[in-house]
Order: sequence, then C-alpha cells, then structure tokens
Amino acid sequence: MLDNIEIIGLIAAVLTTSAFLPQVYKTYKSKDVSSLSMPMLLLFFVGIILWFIYGIIIESFSLMMANGITIGSYALLIFFKLKYAKNN
Amino acid sequence: MLDNIEIIGLIAAVLTTSAFLPQVYKTYKSKDVSSLSMPMLLLFFVGIILWFIYGIIIESFSLMMANGITIGSYALLIFFKLKYAKNN
Repeated sequence: MLDNIEIIGLIAAVLTTSAFLPQVYKTYKSKDVSSLSMPMLLLFFVGIILWFIYGIIIESFSLMMANGITIGSYALLIFFKLKYAKNN
Repeated sequence: MLDNIEIIGLIAAVLTTSAFLPQVYKTYKSKDVSSLSMPMLLLFFVGIILWFIYGIIIESFSLMMANGITIGSYALLIFFKLKYAKNN
C-alpha cells in the first residue's frame, strides 16, 4: 500500500504542509498581516478544498493528508487576516 | 482523457496556481517581504518540486500543471525575499 510512489507524495505532503506552520506562527506572533493578500488566501483555500476532493476520488492518500491539514492552516491565516487587519 | 475527475483537479490547479499571482504582484509592487517567512518559502519550494515529480509518476496532468507553474511563482517570491530583505 505504501509504495515508493506514495513515499514521494508523503515527503511532498510533509514539506508543503509544514511550510505553512512557520507562516502561521510568524503571523500569530507578529500580528503583521500587511503582506498577506486576502484574494490569495481565499483562492487558495477553495483550491485546496478541491484538491482534497480530487485526492479522495483518485485515492491518493498523500493528497488527502496534505490538503486536509493545509485547509486547517489556511483557515487560521484567514482568521488572523480578518482579526488583525481591523486593528491596523 | 479529460474526464470529470480531471476537471475537478484542473479547477483546483487553476485556483491554487492563480492564488499566487496576487501575492507575487503585491510583493513586487510593495517590496514588503517582512511577513513572508523564508523557511516557509524554501520548504514549500522543495515540496512542490516533489509534488511535480509525484504528479509525473501517477500521471496526473492536474498535479503536473499546478506544480509546474507554482514552482515558477515561488522562485520569484524567493528572489524578491532575497532582494528586498537586503534593502530593509
């Protein structure tokens, strides 16, 4: 089940998923959302929901895992953008 | 070849790919890279290269297209981060 192909996908998943954690942390600590673009956040959010669905259909565990977690990270970034943009 | 499944993948690809264009443009215009995290940029860059390879192996046109274009967008963001961070 976990063949060599899926291992490449899983490493990719870990990298692109964990890549958002420093961004989420940095945004949380600095409360600086000025260079985060809301159109980007929203387009990406809808996009990763569709990737998640696509992953379910083609039965790619890597796609499901990566996009499932990233949906959570992006929900947080959108929340920060809404919250801190008001305070600026 | 372009079945319903791949159409979902392609819409996802267009959304997540075009999501980076406002970010790239905003960063280019504002030269503000303060809230872009370099660890995030680099982790993500390596990650999308692996997703691209994964897409080739599982023969997913959506994954190849999305990650191929995003590799270019991220290369630009990394270039801006290096260039403008020095000027701050």
